[in-house]
Amino acid sequence: MNYLRDNIDNLEPYVPGFQPKEAGFIKLNTNENPYPPAPSVFRSLRDFDPERLRLYPDPVSSRLREKIAGTYGFSPDNVIVGNGSDELLSMSLRAFAGEGDRVIYPAPSYSLYGVLSRIQGAAAVEIPLDNDFGLSEEFIQASGKLKFIASPNSPTGTVYPRNLIDKIAIDFNGVIVVDEAYADFSEETVLPLAKKLPNLLVLRTFSKSYSLAGLRVGYAFGSKELIEGMMKVKDSYNLNTISALLAEAALDDREYFQETIGLIKSRRENLRKELEKLDFRVSPSGANFLFCRPPDDSAKTIFQKLLEKKILIRYFDTPGLKNYLRITIGTPQEMGALVNALKEILI
Amino acid sequence: MNYLRDNIDNLEPYVPGFQPKEAGFIKLNTNENPYPPAPSVFRSLRDFDPERLRLYPDPVSSRLREKIAGTYGFSPDNVIVGNGSDELLSMSLRAFAGEGDRVIYPAPSYSLYGVLSRIQGAAAVEIPLDNDFGLSEEFIQASGKLKFIASPNSPTGTVYPRNLIDKIAIDFNGVIVVDEAYADFSEETVLPLAKKLPNLLVLRTFSKSYSLAGLRVGYAFGSKELIEGMMKVKDSYNLNTISALLAEAALDDREYFQETIGLIKSRRENLRKELEKLDFRVSPSGANFLFCRPPDDSAKTIFQKLLEKKILIRYFDTPGLKNYLRITIGTPQEMGALVNALKEILI
Repeated sequence: MNYLRDNIDNLEPYVPGFQPKEAGFIKLNTNENPYPPAPSVFRSLRDFDPERLRLYPDPVSSRLREKIAGTYGFSPDNVIVGNGSDELLSMSLRAFAGEGDRVIYPAPSYSLYGVLSRIQGAAAVEIPLDNDFGLSEEFIQASGKLKFIASPNSPTGTVYPRNLIDKIAIDFNGVIVVDEAYADFSEETVLPLAKKLPNLLVLRTFSKSYSLAGLRVGYAFGSKELIEGMMKVKDSYNLNTISALLAEAALDDREYFQETIGLIKSRRENLRKELEKLDFRVSPSGANFLFCRPPDDSAKTIFQKLLEKKILIRYFDTPGLKNYLRITIGTPQEMGALVNALKEILI
Repeated sequence: MNYLRDNIDNLEPYVPGFQPKEAGFIKLNTNENPYPPAPSVFRSLRDFDPERLRLYPDPVSSRLREKIAGTYGFSPDNVIVGNGSDELLSMSLRAFAGEGDRVIYPAPSYSLYGVLSRIQGAAAVEIPLDNDFGLSEEFIQASGKLKFIASPNSPTGTVYPRNLIDKIAIDFNGVIVVDEAYADFSEETVLPLAKKLPNLLVLRTFSKSYSLAGLRVGYAFGSKELIEGMMKVKDSYNLNTISALLAEAALDDREYFQETIGLIKSRRENLRKELEKLDFRVSPSGANFLFCRPPDDSAKTIFQKLLEKKILIRYFDTPGLKNYLRITIGTPQEMGALVNALKEILI
């Protein structure tokens, strides 16, 4: 007896990056921020009275949505929050694409887009990126109910120009989801487009630039129609009391936010130079990681030898990605240890 | 241009109970626990280092699942946790029922079952309960991919016997989800059936008996096949670091747990007597609330007059429920204030 839907039974689930249970690793594999959350987050948690937990949270997280709206210049009606932007991605499938509907996404990109499409029973249409990781003409033209674009893209770090996404959205009959999980580390954003285009949803997260991956808070901007549709499919109380409160607190400290992002960006360019000295080909990156191709097709060997030295980076053992590595930008000490280890390995 | 799926566009969403933003209400409308969470929860939060939030949580919440499994006598492979049991309900739809598949649920019951079925595009088959809120023969016999039973049922409080659910599950070709959100307040549970039946999923929550509605942690027990299917559709990091940690802490203090449940149960029977003195017909209840029919079809009037006195109870303005009220069991002071207010209103 098989109780699962066929598409679930056959599903190859998304595999998140390895999360070691022991300490002692230099962890550069899941794009976590090397800095602690803002001091305002520490204060907010210290002042929190756990007795509040006996009550349900605000079902629509009004205070957090107002604060996000204020910070980014939107109205709260154009903002929705989720249990991580993964939940918002899942909700976008459930709101906008049914069984058999075409869902378009590029590859390589965040592989969850394909997994979520298959969970929904949608027709998952994966279209390869150009050789330089640009969006292909085929992708740009493809019709469907839903089209995902990660910008900056993961794992490649590629930033897609606002003008191009504007054109894609205008020409598309369905909903465009632009996943800007890493946008705070780049100079580009399509946020202004979310104010004028009825079919554009822009996703952000507290996981990377706000250093709150453990809190699970994502947010999205879009037209009232899109946000109302997402609200209908969201769980009644999708954000817990503490996560909403600490996300609000994180928004308070703009200085800390800008400073830590600035440090990560400049360190990214330092690491680029070091890797290039070691004959790595390093892709342009607008994210808190670098995507690179080591010399002599040695990616897998390097990944394994770094693992032996307790340095975790991300290796994707798939045909198109097997010669590449993705490395999260960490502290100066972590970057130093990484570069030294690479030099030892490559001698 | 309509970007929403038709079933979402036409959806009447689930409306959670009113959550007032001001203080000063006696809140007996959403079945929250009147006691604070266990002292172990307070200690765990006090000792938590917010720096941990920069890292992702364990994607499969291993420690919490092990602790739940140990507490209830299961293997961790037979346990899954969710962002509230609402997420587990949503995941059960996505794993076990596709578009057009029959999903069976009784009415009146938790109205989210129907909403989630319609979000999924499934064929939602709502079957009325008997006059005494028992499961009808039609419901017991109905075939489909998924069948929901809340026991104790909400809003009626009705407990369905283990033997009956055993028989229903054995005769059913799909998956039976028994939602035991309130079971800790009753003398009955189908948990032992989850060890022997391959198609039975039992849902529990930290929201009610553990007094952690604000934390959003639900859990489920089932066969390896069912749990693996649910794992495939869950978001990668569906439980945040703090919620998992505090739920673990809540499980530590069994004495507090049993004591507060005992107090709520005895107070429930006291309130029953008081309501019966006022000529209310009160249904048998295995939950932390009473479902009752006031004299002279006065339910709506009573609800409104209590609201004026800042006492919130639950009134469902639908044809089958319009003569009933659902009242959460609160503190002795809250119950006293409620009874006094009812006496004033009914004079």
